[in-house]
Amino acid sequence: MAICNETRPALSAQPPDRTFYMRPLPSEQPALDSETGRRLFAEALIDGGMASYFKIAQQFHTQSEPAYCSLGTLVCALNALGIDPARQWKGPWRWFSEELLDCCKPLEEIRLVGLSLDEVACLARCSGAQVALHRPGSEYGVERFREHVIEIATRNEPAVLIVNYSRRTLGQTGDGHFSPIGGYHAASDSVLVLDTARFKYPPHWVPVESLFAAMQALDDATGLPRGWIALHSRATSLPN
Amino acid sequence: MAICNETRPALSAQPPDRTFYMRPLPSEQPALDSETGRRLFAEALIDGGMASYFKIAQQFHTQSEPAYCSLGTLVCALNALGIDPARQWKGPWRWFSEELLDCCKPLEEIRLVGLSLDEVACLARCSGAQVALHRPGSEYGVERFREHVIEIATRNEPAVLIVNYSRRTLGQTGDGHFSPIGGYHAASDSVLVLDTARFKYPPHWVPVESLFAAMQALDDATGLPRGWIALHSRATSLPN
Repeated sequence: MAICNETRPALSAQPPDRTFYMRPLPSEQPALDSETGRRLFAEALIDGGMASYFKIAQQFHTQSEPAYCSLGTLVCALNALGIDPARQWKGPWRWFSEELLDCCKPLEEIRLVGLSLDEVACLARCSGAQVALHRPGSEYGVERFREHVIEIATRNEPAVLIVNYSRRTLGQTGDGHFSPIGGYHAASDSVLVLDTARFKYPPHWVPVESLFAAMQALDDATGLPRGWIALHSRATSLPN
Repeated sequence: MAICNETRPALSAQPPDRTFYMRPLPSEQPALDSETGRRLFAEALIDGGMASYFKIAQQFHTQSEPAYCSLGTLVCALNALGIDPARQWKGPWRWFSEELLDCCKPLEEIRLVGLSLDEVACLARCSGAQVALHRPGSEYGVERFREHVIEIATRNEPAVLIVNYSRRTLGQTGDGHFSPIGGYHAASDSVLVLDTARFKYPPHWVPVESLFAAMQALDDATGLPRGWIALHSRATSLPN
């Protein structure tokens, strides 16, 4: 399933049997606002691993539907990159929200079946971003992924890394998911995951090795591993 | 007018003559992601002025309508305080979005005429927050305001300060506005304003004296000065 699993009960016409106010994070994934999470943040800030944090964090956003993890992640990324949608949002303002991402696949279909990694790349390109898509494999091992994380996290220019991974492999509830990355903490080799399902999990730190394993999990919808996308707004080089 | 001025063209049935992609900030209000803004952030983090930052920043949000500065600010604050709305949002999830703030005044009326400071306090109470409302005056001068800012910014427990001010007095376009405060930088005596009109201004630092002057401006709708609201989730003391 390419669809975010936050979604399932939303597809039913019946009200859900049980409702939730957030979910507990696995203990090895400290929340950003926990004591450990704040310490990692302060160390990473001093160390240069949060150079791209401000652009993305100041556009951090709750996905507007439980099924819209890919669209919510793109809204953060496109606004963080400062891409002008060149279309009216509301009032006199041009701005990206999920409703403006009506390219590549109809929104109603996305609500039902979600988006694959390739479709997210299509939608990002269609919205004006430069895109580089990578999947775990012989050419792109965990070292290459870590290089891409570090290259984007440590440079103070608009670039965003989006990851597509299996929540189940990370010990979280649900399965297929998309999130933007907010920074890198070198000593623990962890990334800050800005989870747009904010009604479920707060931002949290995940070890690079664990996240890479969760990207290796196959997407049932495509039969391919999941992976990562580097986004940039201008004609400059992307990690390859 | 209590209504956010971002709003005006949204009320017309005609498409706006001119659309905008953000607006430039006054030069004395550095954006958080500028070189100066990042330096102030790092200094304030070390100095203890960002203790409440993580809770609020991780719920920072784009107001869902140009007229909803008060509701967008409350959505940030209520989710940051970890208040369970005890009602379904979407799918199986309980979470605050603007649509759930249907208390004190009908949403359609808010879209047309906005909310006063007292009405925002009403809505916050109705949503489960503890509320302390203050207006500039003989008892509450700039020193008291600064004390409240520091008390909330430096304590690592869920509390949020909301300010209601005149953008015009600050040299910004528009007029009446609500924003949550994200932190305090002591050396420059400035606060971090997390402006929920993210389509217009990025988060920015504003001197306490300037913000206080912008709260002294009378609200045409009430004939009273604007002011500030401290919000808390539990039965603990609020600044008085």
